[in-house]
Amino acid sequence: MVFEFRLKRRVHFYETDAAGIVHFSTFFRYMEEAEHALWREAGLSIAPRNSEVGWPRVSVSFEYFRPLRFEDEFEAHIRIAEITERRIRYICTLNKDDVRIATGTMTIACVARRPNEPMKSIPIPPEISSRFRVAPEAGQDS
Amino acid sequence: MVFEFRLKRRVHFYETDAAGIVHFSTFFRYMEEAEHALWREAGLSIAPRNSEVGWPRVSVSFEYFRPLRFEDEFEAHIRIAEITERRIRYICTLNKDDVRIATGTMTIACVARRPNEPMKSIPIPPEISSRFRVAPEAGQDS
Amino acid sequence: MVFEFRLKRRVHFYETDAAGIVHFSTFFRYMEEAEHALWREAGLSIAPRNSEVGWPRVSVSFEYFRPLRFEDEFEAHIRIAEITERRIRYICTLNKDDVRIATGTMTIACVARRPNEPMKSIPIPPEISSRFRVAPEAGQDS
Amino acid sequence: MVFEFRLKRRVHFYETDAAGIVHFSTFFRYMEEAEHALWREAGLSIAPRNSEVGWPRVSVSFEYFRPLRFEDEFEAHIRIAEITERRIRYICTLNKDDVRIATGTMTIACVARRPNEPMKSIPIPPEISSRFRVAPEAGQDS
Repeated sequence: MVFEFRLKRRVHFYETDAAGIVHFSTFFRYMEEAEHALWREAGLSIAPRNSEVGWPRVSVSFEYFRPLRFEDEFEAHIRIAEITERRIRYICTLNKDDVRIATGTMTIACVARRPNEPMKSIPIPPEISSRFRVAPEAGQDS
Repeated sequence: MVFEFRLKRRVHFYETDAAGIVHFSTFFRYMEEAEHALWREAGLSIAPRNSEVGWPRVSVSFEYFRPLRFEDEFEAHIRIAEITERRIRYICTLNKDDVRIATGTMTIACVARRPNEPMKSIPIPPEISSRFRVAPEAGQDS
Repeated sequence: MVFEFRLKRRVHFYETDAAGIVHFSTFFRYMEEAEHALWREAGLSIAPRNSEVGWPRVSVSFEYFRPLRFEDEFEAHIRIAEITERRIRYICTLNKDDVRIATGTMTIACVARRPNEPMKSIPIPPEISSRFRVAPEAGQDS
Repeated sequence: MVFEFRLKRRVHFYETDAAGIVHFSTFFRYMEEAEHALWREAGLSIAPRNSEVGWPRVSVSFEYFRPLRFEDEFEAHIRIAEITERRIRYICTLNKDDVRIATGTMTIACVARRPNEPMKSIPIPPEISSRFRVAPEAGQDS
């Protein structure tokens, strides 16, 4: 059972903005990259082709402490903070050389997706929930 | 004195993802577009060329209620929820045809930006703070 | 019958990069925005929900003459340069205050899209081709 | 002396669009990622902090043969096709499992960048041009 992933990453030029730093919206893409790598680590894809199960985001946040710049190397460390019947909540911390850059959170919901119908909340299928567990240390923010 | 802006917008194709809906990170770009339109409404640019004052984001969040799809028309309504000596906090609600799509928050800090020096927190210059005030209704989420 | 569209646009902050100018990949998004506005002008959506007809891009290009910066206002002028049985070719020029910024081209192909089958080239349906015609001046680059 | 780089990459979810495939503008970002990896391979950064030398794009293009989808693994193979006194031209081919996905080209120009002055074309500094050479096979498109 998987509960965390540490993604190593380098900042791309197109992720920066005219302030010379990574645009704040890009951090959510980093968090999502780490999430999908976590799912692959668990032997899963979060969005297999033609899947009738989807995972829309319910709420997300980021706190920013230091900027990232072009070609900076950093780590995005995502952990599962909570799993309920229908939702998963993550915490994600970004660090560069042991300096805290940012901390994010993301809650996703399990839904049924059928053509031309609205998304409908469903319980997480056991073949998915059985692959994950809550990270031991996720109660603390580190 | 300005305290809110209502941005009318249509979803671009490149803002959608393979789930057929606007990617969740794009909502932060919508919130920022509305913010910069609010500043222009106040007669200001948030990032004039060669400015030594910058506005990095300190913390941001979004809650998502309904998806947006290609060519959907929506309104991003941003309001100033709080102004302190060194920070501004916004609330931003997205609606489509009076249906709530999402609610975001964003706190920005005023900093001095000098070449090759780290950003340094400074008080908001009076020529900027005098243009804005807190929105009357911003205590409630609507 | 429609053959051109002039899109007025202002540069968003998240479209700039650490060189202080709009990232070159963003120009293709501007060209696509103008294309989709051209289709709406013709009473069409290029991607209606559940459509079995799709329009993948076959080839695209841009030449860059001047940079665009944050909050610059510009016009993207797209014209239909050629319509064949299965393809449409556009030319798109970007100007700011009558100064040429960039010139792009884009060829799109009409395809049938069915779940779990590869895209297949098909003739443009007459209800689409009847709405468009080649721009008179599109032989010249202006 | 360096003349090519092979970048291994996996498609991120936020790079796809509502057609279920990677948005065509994203391919230019892949080409740029490969370019910057080529420069690092040569011991250089294309955009060191405070550099007075910049590399704006002069012209770019892509031809698309097959789509890429979420989590597809592909290779972006960039090669130097031409070096002149003031410009570098690349060819970049994308392949997935030996199937050709797309072929791109990009020409960049060497410029002096000084605050508040327009960019000015300059000869490529020898400490840069000495690190690169034209790829042997770059005359052919493969």
